[in-house]
Amino acid sequence: MELGQHISQRYNEELEDIRSKVLKMGGMVELQAENAVKSLLSHDRGLAKEVATTDSKINAMEMEIDEDCIRVIARRQPTARDLRLVIAVSKVITDLERIGDEAEKIALYSKKLAKKKTTIGMHADLTHLSELVLNILHDSLDAFARMDADQAVKILGSDKQVNVEFDNLSRLSITFMMEDPRQIKGTLRVNWCARSLERIAEHAQNICEYVIFLVKGKDVRHTSLEHIRSKYFPHDLDEETEENQAG
Amino acid sequence: MELGQHISQRYNEELEDIRSKVLKMGGMVELQAENAVKSLLSHDRGLAKEVATTDSKINAMEMEIDEDCIRVIARRQPTARDLRLVIAVSKVITDLERIGDEAEKIALYSKKLAKKKTTIGMHADLTHLSELVLNILHDSLDAFARMDADQAVKILGSDKQVNVEFDNLSRLSITFMMEDPRQIKGTLRVNWCARSLERIAEHAQNICEYVIFLVKGKDVRHTSLEHIRSKYFPHDLDEETEENQAG
Repeated sequence: MELGQHISQRYNEELEDIRSKVLKMGGMVELQAENAVKSLLSHDRGLAKEVATTDSKINAMEMEIDEDCIRVIARRQPTARDLRLVIAVSKVITDLERIGDEAEKIALYSKKLAKKKTTIGMHADLTHLSELVLNILHDSLDAFARMDADQAVKILGSDKQVNVEFDNLSRLSITFMMEDPRQIKGTLRVNWCARSLERIAEHAQNICEYVIFLVKGKDVRHTSLEHIRSKYFPHDLDEETEENQAG
Repeated sequence: MELGQHISQRYNEELEDIRSKVLKMGGMVELQAENAVKSLLSHDRGLAKEVATTDSKINAMEMEIDEDCIRVIARRQPTARDLRLVIAVSKVITDLERIGDEAEKIALYSKKLAKKKTTIGMHADLTHLSELVLNILHDSLDAFARMDADQAVKILGSDKQVNVEFDNLSRLSITFMMEDPRQIKGTLRVNWCARSLERIAEHAQNICEYVIFLVKGKDVRHTSLEHIRSKYFPHDLDEETEENQAG
């Protein structure tokens, strides 16, 4: 993204500084989510503990960036795109922090699950869901880093797939619980982890909505994907029509 | 709260307008949560459907208030407490909207649960958790309406009680599932509702943190309750000491 160029070099630096801090925070949160998933799938209690203790650094970053945003608004009185950047950042970091919270929850459950390796029967489904969610998170952060609204709008369409994977896992877990009631407690924990993964995808999609707001200047929350595409990304439709005609 | 008095009468009105819209949105969200709980506890499918269709109004309000906030920042360049108000509002409405989402989720599950009245065995525990969470939500919105940081800090201490009620319900649901595997699917849905109630309490507590930020000018997120009390509310400690000495 090219930030607006200002006469004040210091102002440019301040905006760039905020942006790079968000990217750093995003990297930390992504690593947390990856490690939480890894600890869950490989029954790694040590890694789970590590995830549970890293959360405070992410929290500190959220507060620091929020302070920076308020300071820039008060001192520089940004307008137009700069203001949208600061407002979007202040929202994005809330979602990032909550992704960190969900990663911590997964880690806490995976600590408890590691002993009995309860996840084994659900390993394939849990892996599918995890990979999908981690990809969505990665792509969302990438869309933010590159201020790529086209990529952001593509990610917004991925929630249906998350629902499918989540429902698959949920159904499987019910059969496990019915077959062996002793597995109920553990399986319930796997379900909580799946729920947290689902939330991570939701937060990642919120981030995408803020990227579109930032780039296009339009608030696309609570707007149907079809409407977003036709209104702000008409070239996507053209491409699809061309593909259809070609095929 | 007394908003800063500005030479521009119009500016005063704009800030007051934002504030009253947030209160209106808060009222709508609270009603949604109450109705979702009512539909769950009384197996009222009609009410559940109503909750599921009211969500779009709340979403529209969130976007409208966010636009107002951005407009005020761009035009009026607020500083100090006014800026904190606008920033706090922009965060509070995100939590309000997500409380609305959780209410909608509860309503969707309660529609499915109404037929078999699966909740009956867990009715008492579910009622306890619901009442506690609805009280927390009500008190948080009240703290925001009156800009009462003392009340906000009191509410921040209530998460332990929510955890206790949630754990009770969770344990009870496991025994139900073990006793009768045919109940597993339904009981799992009750668990999802309990999780949503827990989230509503979390969002309400986020609102309290923004109230403290607004009034005291301090970001108290991720800060221990003891620290918040001793640093920003020293009179609370004095009172407690007096009570101890009196008792």
